[in-house]
Amino acid sequence: MKIKTSRISPSTQLFRFGKPYKTEAVILNTNDLSFTETEKLPLFKCEKTAESCKLTYTMNKEQCIFGLGESVGGINKRSHIYRMWNSDDPCHTEEKASLYGSHPFFIISDENEKIGVFIDYPTDFQIDAGFTRYNVLSIEIPSENFDLYIFAAGNELQIIREYLKLTGTPYLPPKWAFGFQQSRWSYPDEKTVTQVADNMAAAGIPCDAIYIDIDYMDNYKVFTIDEKKFPDFKKFTAKMKERGIRLIPIIDPGVRIEKGYSVYEDGVKNNYFCKEADGKTDFTAAVWPGLVHFPDFLTDQVRSWWGKLYRLLWNNGIDGIWNDMNEPAIFYTPRKLDAAKKKITEQAINNSWDFFEIRDSLNSLANRRDDYSEMYHFAEDEKNGSINHKNLHNLYGFNMTRATVDEFKKDFPNKRIFLLTRSSYAGAHRMAAIWMGDNQSWWEHLLLHIQMLISLNICGFFYTGADVCGFSGNVSNELALRWMQFAVFSPLFRNHAALGTRNQEPYNFDDKTTNRMRHFIRTRYKLLPYMYTEFVHAVKNLAPLCTPTAFYDKSPQSLECQDEFYLGRSLLIAPVHQPNAQGRIVYLAENHPYLHVRLYNNELEDFAVIQPGNFYMKYSTDEVAFFIKENCGIPTGIIENDGKTFNTIEIIAFVSSIGTASYYEDDGETNDYMQGNFFQIDFTIKKDENNSFLIQADKHGNKLPDIKNFNFVIIDESGSIVRLAFAL
Amino acid sequence: MKIKTSRISPSTQLFRFGKPYKTEAVILNTNDLSFTETEKLPLFKCEKTAESCKLTYTMNKEQCIFGLGESVGGINKRSHIYRMWNSDDPCHTEEKASLYGSHPFFIISDENEKIGVFIDYPTDFQIDAGFTRYNVLSIEIPSENFDLYIFAAGNELQIIREYLKLTGTPYLPPKWAFGFQQSRWSYPDEKTVTQVADNMAAAGIPCDAIYIDIDYMDNYKVFTIDEKKFPDFKKFTAKMKERGIRLIPIIDPGVRIEKGYSVYEDGVKNNYFCKEADGKTDFTAAVWPGLVHFPDFLTDQVRSWWGKLYRLLWNNGIDGIWNDMNEPAIFYTPRKLDAAKKKITEQAINNSWDFFEIRDSLNSLANRRDDYSEMYHFAEDEKNGSINHKNLHNLYGFNMTRATVDEFKKDFPNKRIFLLTRSSYAGAHRMAAIWMGDNQSWWEHLLLHIQMLISLNICGFFYTGADVCGFSGNVSNELALRWMQFAVFSPLFRNHAALGTRNQEPYNFDDKTTNRMRHFIRTRYKLLPYMYTEFVHAVKNLAPLCTPTAFYDKSPQSLECQDEFYLGRSLLIAPVHQPNAQGRIVYLAENHPYLHVRLYNNELEDFAVIQPGNFYMKYSTDEVAFFIKENCGIPTGIIENDGKTFNTIEIIAFVSSIGTASYYEDDGETNDYMQGNFFQIDFTIKKDENNSFLIQADKHGNKLPDIKNFNFVIIDESGSIVRLAFAL
Repeated sequence: MKIKTSRISPSTQLFRFGKPYKTEAVILNTNDLSFTETEKLPLFKCEKTAESCKLTYTMNKEQCIFGLGESVGGINKRSHIYRMWNSDDPCHTEEKASLYGSHPFFIISDENEKIGVFIDYPTDFQIDAGFTRYNVLSIEIPSENFDLYIFAAGNELQIIREYLKLTGTPYLPPKWAFGFQQSRWSYPDEKTVTQVADNMAAAGIPCDAIYIDIDYMDNYKVFTIDEKKFPDFKKFTAKMKERGIRLIPIIDPGVRIEKGYSVYEDGVKNNYFCKEADGKTDFTAAVWPGLVHFPDFLTDQVRSWWGKLYRLLWNNGIDGIWNDMNEPAIFYTPRKLDAAKKKITEQAINNSWDFFEIRDSLNSLANRRDDYSEMYHFAEDEKNGSINHKNLHNLYGFNMTRATVDEFKKDFPNKRIFLLTRSSYAGAHRMAAIWMGDNQSWWEHLLLHIQMLISLNICGFFYTGADVCGFSGNVSNELALRWMQFAVFSPLFRNHAALGTRNQEPYNFDDKTTNRMRHFIRTRYKLLPYMYTEFVHAVKNLAPLCTPTAFYDKSPQSLECQDEFYLGRSLLIAPVHQPNAQGRIVYLAENHPYLHVRLYNNELEDFAVIQPGNFYMKYSTDEVAFFIKENCGIPTGIIENDGKTFNTIEIIAFVSSIGTASYYEDDGETNDYMQGNFFQIDFTIKKDENNSFLIQADKHGNKLPDIKNFNFVIIDESGSIVRLAFAL
Repeated sequence: MKIKTSRISPSTQLFRFGKPYKTEAVILNTNDLSFTETEKLPLFKCEKTAESCKLTYTMNKEQCIFGLGESVGGINKRSHIYRMWNSDDPCHTEEKASLYGSHPFFIISDENEKIGVFIDYPTDFQIDAGFTRYNVLSIEIPSENFDLYIFAAGNELQIIREYLKLTGTPYLPPKWAFGFQQSRWSYPDEKTVTQVADNMAAAGIPCDAIYIDIDYMDNYKVFTIDEKKFPDFKKFTAKMKERGIRLIPIIDPGVRIEKGYSVYEDGVKNNYFCKEADGKTDFTAAVWPGLVHFPDFLTDQVRSWWGKLYRLLWNNGIDGIWNDMNEPAIFYTPRKLDAAKKKITEQAINNSWDFFEIRDSLNSLANRRDDYSEMYHFAEDEKNGSINHKNLHNLYGFNMTRATVDEFKKDFPNKRIFLLTRSSYAGAHRMAAIWMGDNQSWWEHLLLHIQMLISLNICGFFYTGADVCGFSGNVSNELALRWMQFAVFSPLFRNHAALGTRNQEPYNFDDKTTNRMRHFIRTRYKLLPYMYTEFVHAVKNLAPLCTPTAFYDKSPQSLECQDEFYLGRSLLIAPVHQPNAQGRIVYLAENHPYLHVRLYNNELEDFAVIQPGNFYMKYSTDEVAFFIKENCGIPTGIIENDGKTFNTIEIIAFVSSIGTASYYEDDGETNDYMQGNFFQIDFTIKKDENNSFLIQADKHGNKLPDIKNFNFVIIDESGSIVRLAFAL
């Protein structure tokens, strides 16, 4: 078999192996391309058998690998093995090869060469990124049918842009999604949710969303609301929204098998569920609700049906959804459990117990590959009209996302959806957000939050974050503080914890700790104008919001810097992620000075000009600190007493010659910004020969601005401060 | 009840709460002390109930906590919860509170005050070292009977010395124990062990010991040797020893219940095993051999019996023993398993399976507290002559160690024992070595190796180390290299791996990697004169071999430095412990220059004088690098072709004014050094006004030196090199 190739753009080439399954990751219709046969793949050595393909690439010592989305390991993904197999694994230790999503896009990079690689293949394959041999990148795909894209643009950002042109513009959530969000498994009822909101208010902590986990449902039946817990759900969501708080309910794909339950009945009647090999029997597995069927999201019809079910929630005033367990996670299947039961019963009766065999047989029942192999989707293209789930496992969450989003768009054509989904595939970044799954209250996972933020941004998931303070396990006082302190800069800022763990809501600590967390959260709102401006800019320009220093500076220290990142165009963030640290070593890359800012309150009091290099900085747990790049300014809000709103923007700028700063606003809810209904003001701040500053403003968009007053705080390279005002 | 107190030394005070169990951790006879009653404890707030005691201490922001022996976390143990409960837990993630040993000695330290604390209490209690509230250290002991020692010497090293005076001089292993050691679960037979030795020899890799794990026994019966696997064990051990390789067999405490098996029969006949509550029935649990009884190591008689059983091994030419599983680890007890079985069978027959209940009931059978509560020791002092195991759980491994060591001493009064034991308690450091248990092939555990080395050294376990390259899981090429590179400086240098994992013997990698590992191991032998000299010095002076920079320098960076340490008096070690690093940031504490040395082979070629501070150093995977402190010199061997032996010592010294360097040797096998049968030469290297060097030698001990030639390579503060020779 020969490989076919087609040029997608001057720098992007598609190599088509066999007849790939159309995953929908790529929005370009690749069937319309004109292909030529090719004897040889560039860069990679290719060993093919009838049923598999092994691509190898020899790396030099300096080459880094960036990307790979949701995966453990550092910003540089080298020296590790990854498996593209969406997995519900709650223990993200450093050796793990798979998490909840698969994003097989990465960049191999050194000073001389940058190569992007995207393998569009919807199920299990392995990327050995120098684990077995440090200088060998080896990709083993157990199939002869897949698409391989090779990007050869000049730098990492251009490669990412080409990838995003192919796979779609990243998701833009509503503006409120950038506020602070509180969650716990579980706030099961109206009373508890109200108490959380009351406690937040009493502590002076602003909050935009509270999540309701699986217990809000009647017996874990999706698209039901337990009336004992929420007697008037619609009224309650309205009441909460008046207080500025959105409720975000969870939805799982598994539909409980229960006579009379309409979702179940409809699904069975219309053959909406995945089948067994016979094409007739609905595939059954156990998850939270007990035995369930899984919707067959592969078909338009099922996606449309499923998407409409969310109307129950939209009609009750819900603005955001949290799709969970959609790998799909399986606790066990009745068939395998019965086999285990049978064996155990026999052994028990015969008194021939093999303890380890029995224990292991029960422990190995979850998320089994041989269970996934017994699950079938309807697929028109296939000969017998069905396709085995194991052949497109990584698309299940992706297609559940399509179901949720596509019908929402029909119902609310102009509204932005808030959708957090656990499982995903390449391309999902254009539809929804993912969070980083069930992490632990570990310092290691605070660092992983920072690192995965960058890997996911490279794959187009700009809006993401980990469960702040950690999901499983008890969080220590100090880790909670440091994690909240960092999360001020995480696009998704959600504190979430598991059943049975320490209560980690900001008000559930001693007063000193709560006061500090209040400051962090209020500072998040203060920085929200910058965060939102930069986020929209990132989406419009297909350039990640969070990028590593290594993209801009190829010194060894930059390449090895695994705990800093640029947030937007102007800020460098270097969080403390170690216990018992009064500070940390910071590396300031790119040969220019930075303005270091520490915020202890609404006012800019503590700042210093810092020359590039490598040094130790003291960081207490009562401040929010960041670096502003040279000739950059950031819009911040002068926050009112509510901790959230502002009427004046203060631009903090660090200018040695000509600086720029932008402020952007839109309605925050709709897609009208696409039609020009936004307000953007781009300031140029020029330092003249008398060391005074001149401000020029360049306005864009049709929207009348909410903000009319701009205060400038300009610091020059000598650390002198100048204050100016600008009004529209 | 009042607390009694007695002064042990000018700076050490014992506070006796109630009537503590005599653990034997302390070698001083504290019953002979004169006690006075005290109303108030210094430093700690003490809240007592009839059955428990809570001690709290308010910490300031800067205070560090050092010590606590075998535990996860950094060099600074603050911000974590610890439980003193010896546990066989194979997953050392960062939240774990207990590992295999309990060493409740720690130092609270800041610039102004240093306080040592030792709680001599042999079973479960909790130390919250600022986890719940960062500024509160809280110790909860569920008893009114324990000894609390408070040390108030002037600095950390003096406090440690006072602790070691109380608990005993650290263990000195035979000299060969400082060589490279290879292990795997499992080299089950003669053929495999020979192959390992052959492969090492073929690769030019010196090696002093090979471990034989549980499979060498007949059916896991301790003190048996499977003759099918080792037809002539004595001949084989002799043959291996001729090749310079000692075999180290494993011994577990659990004695298989098997009619006719002499250890079992003797134990039953003589009531040597732990009992149930009735004082008659032997306590039964399952471990590797299936159902076993546990020797009751609390009595002299049982310890003596057990200790004599090792004669089987000593008589076969064995010089070293590896005591494992002695927490004691329990897979399950028949009683609890039967209860689980019964429930499962009932549910299976009634078709009323609760899957999670059943699965969890099987998963929770190992190491259960309620099983330990059913185990009893004979104890003369106690009213009914027996004492519940749960009341002195942490002493089981400790007393197994006593059994092994005490009889060895009777049989070989002058020979040093090589004994590695898994479970331990405070005080065990004077009898044997521990390793760090079943770690993982994680970068995080390479760092933990460095950190725990220091915590254990503080508690007197000078000779220790982790399983190099990691026990569980597959090791990556790069991690294996970096771990072997660091382990050159680990007192115990043992590569060990679990069943089913990647073969990680140095010769089981690609040639380039093996070549580098050969260099590391040969460099270990080159540095062995320094390691051994400093180790003996450490033992004689009750001063840890490995110490943190924070002991000598209270700058924030020193206090926070969690990945460097001083090895002996002259070397600072700063290993690379991150993936994809071409180097690392090094912090050079104490305000003096250092000589940085990189060894690529036997010759000193690459060195540089480095000023103190904080900077990035490049470190490749083909070198062994270290820093020599100012005015210090280290003895190294000029290694012969065998990679192991040497006839000339080369002293590498960094001298700006007056430097010192010591070289020590003894027979390496016996305790004759205590009677003066050693050779020690202390050199003084003086730089005179003409910038030339004068060497003075001061000899000690009665032994005729093996080494008569000393070459000096002296580098001064300008980096100039001078070579001198010195002969005896």
